[in-house]
Amino acid sequence: MSLIQPRTLKGFRDYLPAAMIPRERLMETARETFRSFGFAPIDTPTLEHLEILTGKGSEETDRQLYQFVDAGKRPVGMRFDLTVPLARFAAQHINELGTPFKRYHIAPVWRGENPQAGRYREFYQCDFDTIGTESVLADIEAVTVIDSLIRAIGIDAFTISINNRAILNGLLESLGLADKATPILRSLDKLAKIGLEATNAEMVNAAGITSEQADQVLGLAQCDGTAEQVFAKLPGILGDNEKANEGAARLREIYDGAIASGVSPDRIKIDVSIARGLDYYTGVIFETTLDELPGIGSICSGGRYDNLAGLYTKQHLPGIGASLGLDRLLSALETLERLSSNSKPCPVFIPFFDKDHRDDYLRLATNLRKAGIGTEVYPEPRKLKAQLKYADGHGFQYALIAGGNEWERGEVQVKVLAEKTSEDIAYQHDAPEKLIERLTTS
Amino acid sequence: MSLIQPRTLKGFRDYLPAAMIPRERLMETARETFRSFGFAPIDTPTLEHLEILTGKGSEETDRQLYQFVDAGKRPVGMRFDLTVPLARFAAQHINELGTPFKRYHIAPVWRGENPQAGRYREFYQCDFDTIGTESVLADIEAVTVIDSLIRAIGIDAFTISINNRAILNGLLESLGLADKATPILRSLDKLAKIGLEATNAEMVNAAGITSEQADQVLGLAQCDGTAEQVFAKLPGILGDNEKANEGAARLREIYDGAIASGVSPDRIKIDVSIARGLDYYTGVIFETTLDELPGIGSICSGGRYDNLAGLYTKQHLPGIGASLGLDRLLSALETLERLSSNSKPCPVFIPFFDKDHRDDYLRLATNLRKAGIGTEVYPEPRKLKAQLKYADGHGFQYALIAGGNEWERGEVQVKVLAEKTSEDIAYQHDAPEKLIERLTTS
Repeated sequence: MSLIQPRTLKGFRDYLPAAMIPRERLMETARETFRSFGFAPIDTPTLEHLEILTGKGSEETDRQLYQFVDAGKRPVGMRFDLTVPLARFAAQHINELGTPFKRYHIAPVWRGENPQAGRYREFYQCDFDTIGTESVLADIEAVTVIDSLIRAIGIDAFTISINNRAILNGLLESLGLADKATPILRSLDKLAKIGLEATNAEMVNAAGITSEQADQVLGLAQCDGTAEQVFAKLPGILGDNEKANEGAARLREIYDGAIASGVSPDRIKIDVSIARGLDYYTGVIFETTLDELPGIGSICSGGRYDNLAGLYTKQHLPGIGASLGLDRLLSALETLERLSSNSKPCPVFIPFFDKDHRDDYLRLATNLRKAGIGTEVYPEPRKLKAQLKYADGHGFQYALIAGGNEWERGEVQVKVLAEKTSEDIAYQHDAPEKLIERLTTS
Repeated sequence: MSLIQPRTLKGFRDYLPAAMIPRERLMETARETFRSFGFAPIDTPTLEHLEILTGKGSEETDRQLYQFVDAGKRPVGMRFDLTVPLARFAAQHINELGTPFKRYHIAPVWRGENPQAGRYREFYQCDFDTIGTESVLADIEAVTVIDSLIRAIGIDAFTISINNRAILNGLLESLGLADKATPILRSLDKLAKIGLEATNAEMVNAAGITSEQADQVLGLAQCDGTAEQVFAKLPGILGDNEKANEGAARLREIYDGAIASGVSPDRIKIDVSIARGLDYYTGVIFETTLDELPGIGSICSGGRYDNLAGLYTKQHLPGIGASLGLDRLLSALETLERLSSNSKPCPVFIPFFDKDHRDDYLRLATNLRKAGIGTEVYPEPRKLKAQLKYADGHGFQYALIAGGNEWERGEVQVKVLAEKTSEDIAYQHDAPEKLIERLTTS
């Protein structure tokens, strides 16, 4: 019989343990953080009726959609994000769920785009949203969630940039440019990357406005500095435009509320030039950058929207949410050398080399697990050297060596693998305390 | 604009928070248990080259497969289990991973079968396997993992039934029925459900053997009782068939090792009549039933196989593993009324009803979260009564009431929602200890 070549599809990948362990830990941290604020998990099907997915799609998402006709002749598609399924879900269940409705959803999505470095056709999204309220408290909370989440991941140096689309929209209205908002805001998004001059040219080109008009929009970019400085400069730039000034006042409220909630002022930047060019957003918007790696872009972005599910229901559902970029964050942590390359999820390894004592190894492992210490026993009585090589290669923290002599003396040798040190610790099956203490204090 | 009807595909379902919270908790418990034994997580793509999936498929799985041709003209399919992807994964990566390789994989699979009560076209599987070793220690460990897992889920009354396929195969060989093993074993699987007589008829019918031959096979069913009784009776039934006796000896070793590992003897049943009719298994096999709900069938099953990935590699990869039936277990827990219907994942609710104190509510919530107490703040300053109704409906444990008076006095009223009791507890933002203590001791 000829063999089938084992391979994955182009643009798809396997996660081996060393890559999957930190990924899983990151998702668990996200879940814990979301839950601590009262966000509840939901899940929706991978496959949806095609019309649900294409209803809101752009030409680009339609082209990238994995779609087919199922065995029951139904046109179906694989979800390409978690926002469209959330809109469908909310339209279908919101009467049962009630508002405010706070959910998170961590799940894979699929896009048939041409794979580039670090982009795959299957990837996870990690979203949280509060639906059914326009309250500023939900806006404040979204900032607080992002701050808690990034800190829980173990990152200290980051900046959450906040703006309010109402400021931009008000300004464009007062400049008579409201009908050109979309191309102008998309150009504005490039400011940090390409600079003032090129952004001006881009606005002229994309939105068909004059260079002078573009300069007036870009005047916002001069409104920089600390939060207090920005809030002091804003009135002068916004003039008497009511919408823009209300937007600035709400931005101030969000800032103050986030500080009251314990977010460090150093980590919030009021940046009235960020736009997040999606038509979708109507209120506060935010981006999160790592201070050590600003070039990778935002690792957590989102904002307030006015109506989530207008395609599927007449019920008005405003909300606010954000999305953690899991893949981008993991690759950043790797660049920053904050990821271990361990391929084992537990700290202790027990070589099984004295086959007359098999049950003793098993009892020892059970005792450690009972104390919350993850422990692997090697399954075959091979030579100790080979087993220690296995332990080293997989990144275990400790190897516990016990042969006939140790068992007789009531001792276990604790090897700290990274430091190549070892010491004998008293151990008996009914008196494991000393060993547990040694393994839990480092 | 006409609305698109929000609906899910036939055979698919949304998970609302009340269903998703226990589901997620169950998966986390499974992950923690697997990790504590040194099993590491992996993930594989949802989509595979079609030939990978159909290579081992039966007609039935092929018919149920979600398959299509992708935009790059590749025939692809959505995985229908986690075993075929594991085999492909192992063939592709085992040289890098090394053996023994211990992995778990919790992920959805898709089968286009006709939906029945409690069966869906998308469902999760939760598998763990040890690959690349024939050691009995891996067999013992599999039993220990199942025991730890079910106990960690909070179930005490369960039975792990264990057998060794070598006993059955040896017996069939000595009866000259080896070539009819598959239909005979599939019939044997029905014994517990349909009884001796019907099983005999089924064997005669399905395998074309005589009723007397069927009786000889079913003689195994008489070999019941405690583990010690079964091990005492077995030699008489097996005669001098070497394979069967070796199988019985290994079964004894697994039983003893599991007891040494701390599994209660009450929870292990040596049942030489269970067969798990898949050709796949070659050694130890097990099933797990809930003592309070035996009728729902096995909630965790598996066994030892001789060669995992023969379709994709010449490398011989024996292994052992099992699969937790998440959906069956959840529905059992629901039947046993062990699932809460909470739709909130955190215990504390803070009504926001005195709008002048918004920042105080936020600070209080932050303080509790810092102490590990999940806390939701209602986003809008509505009437207290409406907010308490929201808290009741969602199953929060505590509501913390504080208006102007309480803030002034440095107190918070703790309402225990289920008991409809309340008491005032001292609280200040810089002295939260008393409140934290009250909320963490029940």
